[in-house]
Amino acid sequence: MKNLITIDQLSCEEIAKIHEKAEFFFQKNQQEESQFFNDLNNKILINLFFENSTRTRTSFEIAAKRLGAKVINIDISSSSLKKGETIIDTAKTINSMNPNFVVVRHNSSGILDHLKNHISASLINAGDGTNEHPSQALLDSFVIKKHKKTLENLKITICGDVLHSRVARSNIKLLSKFGCKINVVTPPTLMPKDYQIWLKKNWNIEIFENISDGIIGADVVMMLRIQQERMLGCYIPSLNEYFKIFGLDHQKLKNAKPDALVLHPGPINRDVEISSKLADDKKFSAILEQVEAGVAIRQSILHLLNNQK
Amino acid sequence: MKNLITIDQLSCEEIAKIHEKAEFFFQKNQQEESQFFNDLNNKILINLFFENSTRTRTSFEIAAKRLGAKVINIDISSSSLKKGETIIDTAKTINSMNPNFVVVRHNSSGILDHLKNHISASLINAGDGTNEHPSQALLDSFVIKKHKKTLENLKITICGDVLHSRVARSNIKLLSKFGCKINVVTPPTLMPKDYQIWLKKNWNIEIFENISDGIIGADVVMMLRIQQERMLGCYIPSLNEYFKIFGLDHQKLKNAKPDALVLHPGPINRDVEISSKLADDKKFSAILEQVEAGVAIRQSILHLLNNQK
Amino acid sequence: MKNLITIDQLSCEEIAKIHEKAEFFFQKNQQEESQFFNDLNNKILINLFFENSTRTRTSFEIAAKRLGAKVINIDISSSSLKKGETIIDTAKTINSMNPNFVVVRHNSSGILDHLKNHISASLINAGDGTNEHPSQALLDSFVIKKHKKTLENLKITICGDVLHSRVARSNIKLLSKFGCKINVVTPPTLMPKDYQIWLKKNWNIEIFENISDGIIGADVVMMLRIQQERMLGCYIPSLNEYFKIFGLDHQKLKNAKPDALVLHPGPINRDVEISSKLADDKKFSAILEQVEAGVAIRQSILHLLNNQK
Repeated sequence: MKNLITIDQLSCEEIAKIHEKAEFFFQKNQQEESQFFNDLNNKILINLFFENSTRTRTSFEIAAKRLGAKVINIDISSSSLKKGETIIDTAKTINSMNPNFVVVRHNSSGILDHLKNHISASLINAGDGTNEHPSQALLDSFVIKKHKKTLENLKITICGDVLHSRVARSNIKLLSKFGCKINVVTPPTLMPKDYQIWLKKNWNIEIFENISDGIIGADVVMMLRIQQERMLGCYIPSLNEYFKIFGLDHQKLKNAKPDALVLHPGPINRDVEISSKLADDKKFSAILEQVEAGVAIRQSILHLLNNQK
Repeated sequence: MKNLITIDQLSCEEIAKIHEKAEFFFQKNQQEESQFFNDLNNKILINLFFENSTRTRTSFEIAAKRLGAKVINIDISSSSLKKGETIIDTAKTINSMNPNFVVVRHNSSGILDHLKNHISASLINAGDGTNEHPSQALLDSFVIKKHKKTLENLKITICGDVLHSRVARSNIKLLSKFGCKINVVTPPTLMPKDYQIWLKKNWNIEIFENISDGIIGADVVMMLRIQQERMLGCYIPSLNEYFKIFGLDHQKLKNAKPDALVLHPGPINRDVEISSKLADDKKFSAILEQVEAGVAIRQSILHLLNNQK
Repeated sequence: MKNLITIDQLSCEEIAKIHEKAEFFFQKNQQEESQFFNDLNNKILINLFFENSTRTRTSFEIAAKRLGAKVINIDISSSSLKKGETIIDTAKTINSMNPNFVVVRHNSSGILDHLKNHISASLINAGDGTNEHPSQALLDSFVIKKHKKTLENLKITICGDVLHSRVARSNIKLLSKFGCKINVVTPPTLMPKDYQIWLKKNWNIEIFENISDGIIGADVVMMLRIQQERMLGCYIPSLNEYFKIFGLDHQKLKNAKPDALVLHPGPINRDVEISSKLADDKKFSAILEQVEAGVAIRQSILHLLNNQK
């Protein structure tokens, strides 16, 4: 395994291995002292972000630095490279500087499958369009496993704009590998087009048009971020109405299992996708734990890619 | 002392201790060789800037790197976090990545008092609205002490937009602790609202409406930056007129003590707050020395916060 | 040699020395392991960029980090320093933080000659207006020498907007030192004004108005980037027409020597300056090798400046 581009490339055993090593880093990161490692000493990691992302970029940067790598951030939206150069040329240029890892975020779905043929460095997908965000699914499943002790045969509700969500897409792939039942709750206007593909694979997926029904019996409820700037008036009549039908609060959560775990990839829109009170209720919400797990998972990914080259 | 949020939290002894250690770093930084330290090896410092600031951000970055820390810069104005996320959520997210220090600049006065309840890392105020900029006051007083040998009972003139100046506010607090007499020179439209509070504390502060009077007998003249883009037409009729009444040049400086020290936090507007000739006159102007002292003071702050945790 | 500001300051022997050390780094950078050095441990390099440049900034950053330096990036176009501060004041401010190297890109031709009087750190020109880009000419000549075994008396064609090109200007200076014959191919509207200066120096330079004639017998063809956003309608009627007269493809390249080397500083506009097919033809095109050489050349420059202080 040289690259991490899609959840498709990972077996259940490999996912378990990533989780296991991440648990090691997760615990080390909470200690005050000696939480740095030498795995990536003398290695260069380039964060090549064609879309802004403070959260994911920072997470990869901290993960790499904790392992001893040198990190170079390239933000292309504010860069001269945007002037007429193709993304392939940009990537080949960056690769010619002999980095060891290139972490890419881009708004074109599937672009990394194309890039990997031109890049000798290890390529890591940090989100490509509406396609995949594998490190997010790995960290989400890591948090689920920490709480539920297993990933096998859980009942997971994923609620929101699944059509445009790479987070949802990667999670559905990953959790289906472990036999989870997945309830997808989504407005009919945001129905994911790959539902037919999922059915053909015999994945256990059911579609719901409101969260109150879709959440019944859930072990885990994964809320998705609404991109307000893209959604309003277009796919969604109003934020209030969205919250009524698709937003999560303590009342609706009662339909799930009593120990249901609530996840959100962030940044959250309070009282749009999730009530402010529930977001802060540590009995259910693991939102900040997801962020913390994100660094550990990325350390684990870098560690394993580095060892397998 | 876990955080540095306001000058209020510092005793005269603590300020002297910060100055003393800063003097050590100040001298080391001027040497060609071996000016790096290991204090913050295996520590992560995040510069979380909600307002642009090349000068302060760079100063903290160099200070932290000279002590061995890993530094991550987050510029939120150009970031995805601005889309609907609250500053508290942003800070909690960053904190969940287990940094050791978070340096914050934000345009909301007093925001750090709020943030500190949500952040386990050491929190350092790099400027919050019109409220405080404690590291700037510490570096200004450090430069004053280097030149005047003491901070006790000096006569200080602070001239400019005191109403909106966090630099002035932190300096007035710090210098009043040492019994300084402070002449505040400010247009009546920019009269600071906390003047009544200062009087209640029995601080020795007097208000003047032109610099020629306000500078008489001063040991130190501290000029403030005019935010031209916010001020013109609103608070100030014209830059020329401002310079005549509030700007400093060699002629007006004659009213101060013969060895008066001229300070400015920068960036300077030449011939608006200060004549170009005086700004470059090393006999009086310590403007670049302030910049140099800034790195040493921030090293000292980080060093002491790190030891006291 | 404390600064690198212009090719004028370098003798042929110094250029050869830079190339020789760069060859060492070039080979080390291609190895998987142990390609980092300690030359610049405890040194600070500041990238002070007043113009966006992902490519050059990243190249200097990687070069410095491979030598052990701490790197601070300052992008002034998105910074508070732009508000009224002069570039001299900005540079003096940065210099007061005691960096060891300051790498500057600015759109004012000749600005570094001015800056060097105010900066105690080593100053490196990363492109000043239409004047010079010495590290680019050093890397271009490095690649030429790798392929042609010598720089002496080669026939070089430089094609494009020579009037505005600091890359062309630095290359013409460097290659003329080695007795090269230089064919400048440029639209009459983009005729460089320093042609008369070149003639007075008895450099062997000839002007052509189309590439088919200007390329005859060339050992090396150096294509320049068209700044589409500045050029269209103003200097150039259309991109199609530009490509017909000044663009390079396999057909036109037949007029050059059979083993002609094709260079481009990037980023390339495919099918504007060079046909897409030729840009990717590794038999002729050394465009990505130039990028790779760029890091090695900058390591070599930093290494030599560091030793000579």
